[in-house]
Amino acid sequence: MPNCGFAEIFVYHAGSMHIDEGAEIADLPDLLSDPKNVVWVDIRAENPDDVPAIKDLLLNTFQFHYLAVEDCLETRNQPKIEAFPDYLYFIVHGVKPDETSATNFITKELDGFLGVNYVVTFHIERFRSIKNVKQQLRTSPFACQRGSAYLLHQILDQVVDYYMPLVDDFDGEINHLEERVFAMKKGSNLILEDIMDLRRSVARLKRISSRQLEVLYRMSHGEFPQIPASILPFFRDVHDHLLRISDLSENYRDLVSSLFDIHFAVVGNRTNDVMKTLAVLSAILLPLTLIAGIYGMNFDNMPELHSRNGYWVTLAAMALLTISLLFYFWRRGWIFQRAEIAVGTETEKGEKE
Amino acid sequence: MPNCGFAEIFVYHAGSMHIDEGAEIADLPDLLSDPKNVVWVDIRAENPDDVPAIKDLLLNTFQFHYLAVEDCLETRNQPKIEAFPDYLYFIVHGVKPDETSATNFITKELDGFLGVNYVVTFHIERFRSIKNVKQQLRTSPFACQRGSAYLLHQILDQVVDYYMPLVDDFDGEINHLEERVFAMKKGSNLILEDIMDLRRSVARLKRISSRQLEVLYRMSHGEFPQIPASILPFFRDVHDHLLRISDLSENYRDLVSSLFDIHFAVVGNRTNDVMKTLAVLSAILLPLTLIAGIYGMNFDNMPELHSRNGYWVTLAAMALLTISLLFYFWRRGWIFQRAEIAVGTETEKGEKE
Amino acid sequence: MPNCGFAEIFVYHAGSMHIDEGAEIADLPDLLSDPKNVVWVDIRAENPDDVPAIKDLLLNTFQFHYLAVEDCLETRNQPKIEAFPDYLYFIVHGVKPDETSATNFITKELDGFLGVNYVVTFHIERFRSIKNVKQQLRTSPFACQRGSAYLLHQILDQVVDYYMPLVDDFDGEINHLEERVFAMKKGSNLILEDIMDLRRSVARLKRISSRQLEVLYRMSHGEFPQIPASILPFFRDVHDHLLRISDLSENYRDLVSSLFDIHFAVVGNRTNDVMKTLAVLSAILLPLTLIAGIYGMNFDNMPELHSRNGYWVTLAAMALLTISLLFYFWRRGWIFQRAEIAVGTETEKGEKE
Amino acid sequence: MPNCGFAEIFVYHAGSMHIDEGAEIADLPDLLSDPKNVVWVDIRAENPDDVPAIKDLLLNTFQFHYLAVEDCLETRNQPKIEAFPDYLYFIVHGVKPDETSATNFITKELDGFLGVNYVVTFHIERFRSIKNVKQQLRTSPFACQRGSAYLLHQILDQVVDYYMPLVDDFDGEINHLEERVFAMKKGSNLILEDIMDLRRSVARLKRISSRQLEVLYRMSHGEFPQIPASILPFFRDVHDHLLRISDLSENYRDLVSSLFDIHFAVVGNRTNDVMKTLAVLSAILLPLTLIAGIYGMNFDNMPELHSRNGYWVTLAAMALLTISLLFYFWRRGWIFQRAEIAVGTETEKGEKE
Amino acid sequence: MPNCGFAEIFVYHAGSMHIDEGAEIADLPDLLSDPKNVVWVDIRAENPDDVPAIKDLLLNTFQFHYLAVEDCLETRNQPKIEAFPDYLYFIVHGVKPDETSATNFITKELDGFLGVNYVVTFHIERFRSIKNVKQQLRTSPFACQRGSAYLLHQILDQVVDYYMPLVDDFDGEINHLEERVFAMKKGSNLILEDIMDLRRSVARLKRISSRQLEVLYRMSHGEFPQIPASILPFFRDVHDHLLRISDLSENYRDLVSSLFDIHFAVVGNRTNDVMKTLAVLSAILLPLTLIAGIYGMNFDNMPELHSRNGYWVTLAAMALLTISLLFYFWRRGWIFQRAEIAVGTETEKGEKE
Repeated sequence: MPNCGFAEIFVYHAGSMHIDEGAEIADLPDLLSDPKNVVWVDIRAENPDDVPAIKDLLLNTFQFHYLAVEDCLETRNQPKIEAFPDYLYFIVHGVKPDETSATNFITKELDGFLGVNYVVTFHIERFRSIKNVKQQLRTSPFACQRGSAYLLHQILDQVVDYYMPLVDDFDGEINHLEERVFAMKKGSNLILEDIMDLRRSVARLKRISSRQLEVLYRMSHGEFPQIPASILPFFRDVHDHLLRISDLSENYRDLVSSLFDIHFAVVGNRTNDVMKTLAVLSAILLPLTLIAGIYGMNFDNMPELHSRNGYWVTLAAMALLTISLLFYFWRRGWIFQRAEIAVGTETEKGEKE
Repeated sequence: MPNCGFAEIFVYHAGSMHIDEGAEIADLPDLLSDPKNVVWVDIRAENPDDVPAIKDLLLNTFQFHYLAVEDCLETRNQPKIEAFPDYLYFIVHGVKPDETSATNFITKELDGFLGVNYVVTFHIERFRSIKNVKQQLRTSPFACQRGSAYLLHQILDQVVDYYMPLVDDFDGEINHLEERVFAMKKGSNLILEDIMDLRRSVARLKRISSRQLEVLYRMSHGEFPQIPASILPFFRDVHDHLLRISDLSENYRDLVSSLFDIHFAVVGNRTNDVMKTLAVLSAILLPLTLIAGIYGMNFDNMPELHSRNGYWVTLAAMALLTISLLFYFWRRGWIFQRAEIAVGTETEKGEKE
Repeated sequence: MPNCGFAEIFVYHAGSMHIDEGAEIADLPDLLSDPKNVVWVDIRAENPDDVPAIKDLLLNTFQFHYLAVEDCLETRNQPKIEAFPDYLYFIVHGVKPDETSATNFITKELDGFLGVNYVVTFHIERFRSIKNVKQQLRTSPFACQRGSAYLLHQILDQVVDYYMPLVDDFDGEINHLEERVFAMKKGSNLILEDIMDLRRSVARLKRISSRQLEVLYRMSHGEFPQIPASILPFFRDVHDHLLRISDLSENYRDLVSSLFDIHFAVVGNRTNDVMKTLAVLSAILLPLTLIAGIYGMNFDNMPELHSRNGYWVTLAAMALLTISLLFYFWRRGWIFQRAEIAVGTETEKGEKE
Repeated sequence: MPNCGFAEIFVYHAGSMHIDEGAEIADLPDLLSDPKNVVWVDIRAENPDDVPAIKDLLLNTFQFHYLAVEDCLETRNQPKIEAFPDYLYFIVHGVKPDETSATNFITKELDGFLGVNYVVTFHIERFRSIKNVKQQLRTSPFACQRGSAYLLHQILDQVVDYYMPLVDDFDGEINHLEERVFAMKKGSNLILEDIMDLRRSVARLKRISSRQLEVLYRMSHGEFPQIPASILPFFRDVHDHLLRISDLSENYRDLVSSLFDIHFAVVGNRTNDVMKTLAVLSAILLPLTLIAGIYGMNFDNMPELHSRNGYWVTLAAMALLTISLLFYFWRRGWIFQRAEIAVGTETEKGEKE
Repeated sequence: MPNCGFAEIFVYHAGSMHIDEGAEIADLPDLLSDPKNVVWVDIRAENPDDVPAIKDLLLNTFQFHYLAVEDCLETRNQPKIEAFPDYLYFIVHGVKPDETSATNFITKELDGFLGVNYVVTFHIERFRSIKNVKQQLRTSPFACQRGSAYLLHQILDQVVDYYMPLVDDFDGEINHLEERVFAMKKGSNLILEDIMDLRRSVARLKRISSRQLEVLYRMSHGEFPQIPASILPFFRDVHDHLLRISDLSENYRDLVSSLFDIHFAVVGNRTNDVMKTLAVLSAILLPLTLIAGIYGMNFDNMPELHSRNGYWVTLAAMALLTISLLFYFWRRGWIFQRAEIAVGTETEKGEKE
């Protein structure tokens, strides 16, 4: 690839039945003119200086519609598919986990064109999925032998495959957050921020996957002549994978929003416990203090004060009152329940897993 | 079944009108060539070593599409149905209760192919429903006499029949949780975890049954030539059963999420009760303590202290104040209401059932 | 009806233009063979012993499809309609209030078949609506003169008519619950149970009526040849009635779930009130107690103690502080507001009705 | 109108091009027989004694379908439209504010029939919109010159015009309630009742307008031969007005239900404030009381008691402790914040409007 | 533009291929009669006195339908599109930020007509987007060379472009509000009002963009002959931009309503913290006060009082009890956690950005 640092070209020569990686951009018109070839041009616009050359390639060599090329070079587009007379233009999104946050993920845009005998892919970020397909091609020309649509299927299949680990991570993160909500050791606001972050991410995943689902639905239902009927089941397969992801993300959305419910419930319980502690404390200590206050009054005529065992009787009465109240509150379930519960939870959890 | 530990083959010979269980895999091409036979091959891939042989059987003997066979051998698929020129490929899910948890259930995938004169079923877990159909066939060839579609209906009918007890269990579990929420004796967080678990399960049931409903809707509406019109009412029947389950699970979803509402309300009431207790306590004891404190002051000139009955009058005043306050709070409905309520609940509940 | 305790047969003889109630099951084939007759067979399967005879009647005399008859004899089916070549099979649900609970209602299944010149109805529970139609027929043959579809319309109209009082009861019950939530005298958990019960009932009503609506929609849109175009407006009329009920039940669902919101708000207000009472109490009594405590200290050198009016000045200061604080809290709106509110509510309510 | 107190008849004579108000019911057959006339019969069934005469007019003179006439005479119907071979039957609802309650409104049913050269309207309550159209006709025959459909459009346009002020009132009422929720001076339960009432009203408005929208959608899409293509844009105009109302009522529904959220939040904040006050009070007064209590103990050997300035030092220490705690709580933002907030709110509000 | 202060007229002469800005209203009939010209009449009805002249221009010169002109002159319309035989009438909404409030935005109505060789735009407010297009035209006639539909596309593209910064502002405002909710320094009700305002704005944005989306969907799908197929992709492009905005506003709606959830949770946590502080305070000080009270009693026989170190032992015991309780509550996580949390939050936040 001497003259084009931004593009890698794979050509499957129908005649020789092997993959050629050495073609240059200048060779493309020749290569594309043979309908039996399968040409894959993978463009990575890492360097903004390459943009004019890329634009020239897409507009002039391939003669794509001006608007499609504009959309392609732009970022922040939604997944979509548009049919032009000779080719399809599509946008799909790849995902990768955000290393700095367990509750977030990063989307990467992959634009592409599918013609009868070519696939053009355009992206700015690195795609592991595209790297994988290239390595496959270097090993065997199989993915090209069934034509350009099958090659595209291979790429999309790889892109969608990277959704699953992400979704699994969310599953784990939801469970982890649920445990943290129940434990609620400290930093409750921190938990809230994480729930909110996860909520955003899951909503984003749902939105992206549902738009993408539409793209794949249309690709797999024989709407476009560029995708022959024999290849449709393969696209249907990718569609089914994505459907599962979309379903799961819908499900996670429900679960994440019920994390708020649980948080409210746990805080409510906790406040209730604190209140009970306070009420029990007051119920025991205020009467005792009153008794002490009464015998601290300075009336001249208070016979109890002069009785020999008055003090001891009073202390005994205080002790008795304390014990009775503790027993009463224990019966009402206001005290000495926490430890049991904690143990109970342990046991129940232990049994479950 | 000497040469194939993984497959059981039932053949209904149209001529002799009886069921033959002794066929081997090698006999299948012959048996399938007679369109009047009905062949059921039930494959249970218990042993991973059998996978290559199974793959060979499906790909070569039956000549199923490569992707369908791949999907079939994989697990974690959604219920779906796909039409191929000569056969249908479907995935349905069976359910069984999770013995270790009342709020959970386990799904088992059942893949299958329906041809003009054969049914192939593939599963990894044991299915009671399939066992039941086999026992039926051993008793009478009836289920095969109407052809392969009717046989499939029998299997699906049995699979769906095992949903109902599960749904009934959920019903019971929701009532049980509701009672626990109202009682809220101890372990409130434990209840929350159970509600959350049930919420997950019900959402899962809803999701599975609605996807499955789609499969059965398509099977029962004459879309596929493999299912003759005379058999359609039978599939419609299975569809109706599943519809009821789907409806109920939608309903349960509402009920489970209102369990959270009730939980909030019950905890709110409880906190309110505790607060009232605390307020009443303070309202009675703080004034008394103040009185005691006043007569505990050391002013030289406090005539009451020297009156003969000062002490007794003070004690009497305290008692009077206590009684007045208790009466006031009783009138405002802050105290002595709990017991009545409890009784009321008993009575009302008693009347209801 | 000497030989069939389970069935009542009404025959409208087109020739003589009168209703005959004396026919026996054995006469049915003859009666049905004249397309100008209108035959209504009402089967009530009160006695399980009659089931074989009923099955025989439906399967052999009427030659209904095996599955339809099975569905018919079963209970716990959803409302539905199924077209067979010569007849329609439908399930609708009647309702009646549950005498033991104002928040519940009971559904009764009514199965039926409509042919060109006959109506067959099958039920286990007693239907007031069917009784009404029978009495009508005994008075005048009018309901039969327009054919079997019109007769069916009469029956369904009566069945749907019994929904309205139920819906009205729900309306009243929601208002009643709302009042109870606002009053919240005692037994708050009891209210919660009633709200929950009503929620279940309303969801059930919504579910049943929407399924039934579908049945009537299909009946009233000329889809079935058994229902001639001239009769369609009558079915549309029943459909409209049901639509209104379905709409109302949707509405009630919203209202019932806002009862929870109100409950939370009322309990929140109440807790707030209790907290304020507690805070005011503490704010007044704690400072007084502190003052009493200070003059209860035993320092040798406390000049105030020896002043002549120290005690009286202290008491006066205490009274002044109390009054100031009360005034402050009254200004802040924390106390002495309840009575006004109560009065305000009375007045406002009074004005409204 | 000598012989019919219940009906007003307007006849536009195509020949003389003027409006005649003097026709009697007996003249109707003649008038209707000329397809170039436009006849409007407005029936107001104020007096129940007129019902038989009205029924006779509709059934015999106009020969409307029995069921349509029944629906017409009945009240409590939903907006709908039904096509009969020669005429349309429709029900729409007019609204007027309920004078006794700002959160409520009253609906009035207007039934009507549209034929090729006539409009029949039927209502029980007075309609300002109908009065307006009559006054228009008395001024100029314009509204009749384009035929019966255009006349109907005029009536419906007026009916829908009266929705807008109502919707504006709701807007104001929501803002008013929002202010009351934030102020929450007193009578919080009163606010809740008003929110609940408004919720009911908005849901009702949404329901009515969406059903009515359907009626107007069908009227404005060329479905009925009674409404010629040239008149369709006029009906589309009415439809657009109603659409705006329906949209707004959907919006209000959201806003009203968020009033509950705000209420919860405001009460939560308030409770939090009360709790803080209580906590600060306790945190300051309890330690002081403890100190006083300690120096009130009667131990023989308490050197501080005999020091000359012990009392004054203690009082100074108490003052110092009080000041430190106040400073601490002020730093934590628990006290002396309310006034600022109040001012802040004033300012911000002032800026906004 | 001597004779029409309200209208600016741009004429692209197909022959001379340049833009002429000097035409007058009187020239319009001539200019429009040449189908190769492209005429843009931009009307700004700043001055109410111009309304009759504008009406005359639209009704007589262009001969638009009476109702369309009426709608055009009116404000407060929803976005919509209506097809007339020779032209399209559309309403779209432009937006601009409200300078006085970060949570609000202002909508401006832009009405327009599209004919084969003309575009008429009508607005009352100033539109930056229209100003931009005019400046473009003054620079180059390019936007007119492809015909009137392409010119309209240019205008709509500019209008929709001004949505994006607004949406970005909302994004920022939501994040800002989230931070304020978590910080909740003071003025919590102020935050609530801002959340409520934002909620209204986002709902409004959602409503406007979804209606507008419909307009653009219809424009970009070849439904109208005024928009030739070659121009459709350009309209599809505008549609896609709007779709992204509509998607984002849906998303923001979710986020804004979860701000309430977070607010509840944060206030709940805060109340919980205050309660804990209060409970800890009471738990420590009430027992100490009781001890002091006991030794303040005046019994004759209290040996401890006379022991030499009684006072010191008591003080030491009090200190010991205090330390034990502090340790106990620290272990239970009720105290000394706040600082850590705050630090934790700082760190975590720091890491994230």
